[in-house]
Amino acid sequence: MTDRSTFPSPIDVRGRGFPGRAALADVQRWIDTHAVPPPPGEVPLNEAAGRVLAAPVTAPGDWPPADRAARDGVAVASSDTLGAGSYNPIPLLNAVPVSAGEPMPPGTDAVLPVETVQQDAGFTEALGSAAPGDGVERRGEGIRAGAVLLEAGRILRPQDLGLLVALGIGAVTVAARPRVRVVLAGGPRSGSETLGAMLSALVVRDGGAVELVGPLPAERGALAAAYSAPGADLLLSVGRTGVGEDDVAPLALADAGTLVAHGVAMRPGDSAGVGLAAGVPAVLLPGEPMAALAAYELLAGRAVRRMAGRDSVLPHPARAVVTARKLISEIGCVDLYRVRLTADGAVEPLASATVPGLAGAVRADGFVLISAESEGIPAGASVTVHCFDGTKG
Amino acid sequence: MTDRSTFPSPIDVRGRGFPGRAALADVQRWIDTHAVPPPPGEVPLNEAAGRVLAAPVTAPGDWPPADRAARDGVAVASSDTLGAGSYNPIPLLNAVPVSAGEPMPPGTDAVLPVETVQQDAGFTEALGSAAPGDGVERRGEGIRAGAVLLEAGRILRPQDLGLLVALGIGAVTVAARPRVRVVLAGGPRSGSETLGAMLSALVVRDGGAVELVGPLPAERGALAAAYSAPGADLLLSVGRTGVGEDDVAPLALADAGTLVAHGVAMRPGDSAGVGLAAGVPAVLLPGEPMAALAAYELLAGRAVRRMAGRDSVLPHPARAVVTARKLISEIGCVDLYRVRLTADGAVEPLASATVPGLAGAVRADGFVLISAESEGIPAGASVTVHCFDGTKG
Repeated sequence: MTDRSTFPSPIDVRGRGFPGRAALADVQRWIDTHAVPPPPGEVPLNEAAGRVLAAPVTAPGDWPPADRAARDGVAVASSDTLGAGSYNPIPLLNAVPVSAGEPMPPGTDAVLPVETVQQDAGFTEALGSAAPGDGVERRGEGIRAGAVLLEAGRILRPQDLGLLVALGIGAVTVAARPRVRVVLAGGPRSGSETLGAMLSALVVRDGGAVELVGPLPAERGALAAAYSAPGADLLLSVGRTGVGEDDVAPLALADAGTLVAHGVAMRPGDSAGVGLAAGVPAVLLPGEPMAALAAYELLAGRAVRRMAGRDSVLPHPARAVVTARKLISEIGCVDLYRVRLTADGAVEPLASATVPGLAGAVRADGFVLISAESEGIPAGASVTVHCFDGTKG
Repeated sequence: MTDRSTFPSPIDVRGRGFPGRAALADVQRWIDTHAVPPPPGEVPLNEAAGRVLAAPVTAPGDWPPADRAARDGVAVASSDTLGAGSYNPIPLLNAVPVSAGEPMPPGTDAVLPVETVQQDAGFTEALGSAAPGDGVERRGEGIRAGAVLLEAGRILRPQDLGLLVALGIGAVTVAARPRVRVVLAGGPRSGSETLGAMLSALVVRDGGAVELVGPLPAERGALAAAYSAPGADLLLSVGRTGVGEDDVAPLALADAGTLVAHGVAMRPGDSAGVGLAAGVPAVLLPGEPMAALAAYELLAGRAVRRMAGRDSVLPHPARAVVTARKLISEIGCVDLYRVRLTADGAVEPLASATVPGLAGAVRADGFVLISAESEGIPAGASVTVHCFDGTKG
């Protein structure tokens, strides 16, 4: 099941350095194979906003179920109104006040606006004529029984809930929220123990439910136990992935199951890794905050989104923008540049891919990825910016 | 405080029809004046994702607080490595293994990658030279003490939380979530009682907290009591806004405070209204689901967003697209067309502004607004589509 053949065989890199790094695309492919959504479940509509439909929803009947008033007014037989006008009022025998949404009373086939009707001492007169069906919504005009209303994979919008309630559908089958265990493997000297809030927010954004564990000491046994404990669909561990003596996260993952790849050709985040912990897919994130963010966005988030039934590609709105300055890159490595949109609509780097720290990511409007095949992008070229704010652009 | 002079004086429209309707822009201006954010409050960082900063956050100190290793490796005095190379190893007296993020040990000013260092029977040799500062992140290089990290009004991103925790900031002052009471005024014959899930999801999307009341019967006294009960920052009432006998929501709002405007020149949603209920701004939404959605998006949502400290304009990503067909409109009325993006990137209407029902809004990719001054938009013209899905486009 675990195909390790495309990856350099992981070794203990502590004090030695990485002999090579796995291609980002290969690691993403491994994630796509191993991040399997947990079984879907049913939720009531008032909990369904933003959830992902796991099965299509079809209309249980016609909508509206019968002809009904499309506006407030007076229901009439249209044939009774022939030739009526403000200078030629015509008395109506069958004239029933109706509100929008009410079924049409027997013997009526049109709704006159109240302004076109005159009440006068016990009888009602039409001041205008109506054609059959005027002001009426026909049975099945909105939706035919059996029609597919919403496709599987749809992220439910507020108006979807309104339609479903109106059709008498009280619950829907949605993709489960994968249970994502986030193990802070930092130990007291690292920054990784501070990353819980950031990673939790990212997992929730991508549709997962978080179980935060730690911070744990940088001890192989303690980490392996946390990795292999039951109850998680996906394991993220942050910190202790580098080449220092106490960087024991990769060894602990090997103890808990299989370390499939350690070292990914991406910057920042090149000490990331993937594997299986007691059969559960696992992503090791570096403890340096910017590297953790990059490895989350390009690796872990992909697993979360996929398991939550969402599109596995980056969730940030993409925008084509021209570079104001050159972006330098290294062949063989995917570089993630934090960038800012300038006043004249171009894009400029805030920090090179090799500079650590979240300050650049906080000031940035988004990021640009430079592929492993590229030596960089000249000024004036068009690039895709992945914008951090969902509603931007 | 309540300037009613720009609006037609509201009358009891039941059985009569609207004598005139308020301009949408005037009603939006009234909302902007009366939707005042409640006082901000402090929340811990693990509850702060997606909240709106009410005050700027400044750096309490330099970051990093001292020179520190920017990579895993061996800290050295750069002057000790002059001329070192793989064919000229130079012994190092002061060579301390460090992990990325650790403070630089005394007497060192550079970090050599582990690959550039050779451990040999008790002594350490450099296999390459380092310049001062190589592999070192300087004190304050990321952030200077006192610098504004995040401006007021910022919607907090996951990486913002990471940066704030790293700087030792454990809580932030954010805009309050306005308490939005949603009164379902439908009564048993209307569809409005089914709109709770849709409206709740919309209010949450825009940053509010929902209190759902009802469905209540269409009784003036019961509605007025629900409108004026304490504990809400904003009141939304849905249903019973038309010209039928039991359309008592406007009268109930007048009883509970002031009915400022009833009838808005927009389609759908033209029976909407605004006013004050015991001093709290109130928006009356029609009970027809599509009209309720339109009036929410253009009126109520504006109040929610404004009170939640957000930008009051529509939150949907906007996109310029060419029309595949003509969009017909009525002068004096803002029309909201539900539209679909076609395979060749144009936009076509799914339902005219006068057709009720949510089915069009569910099939739609977004909507187009046609201004009150316009008779419509010809085929081939560029229009702004407000896309329903945040990440689309």
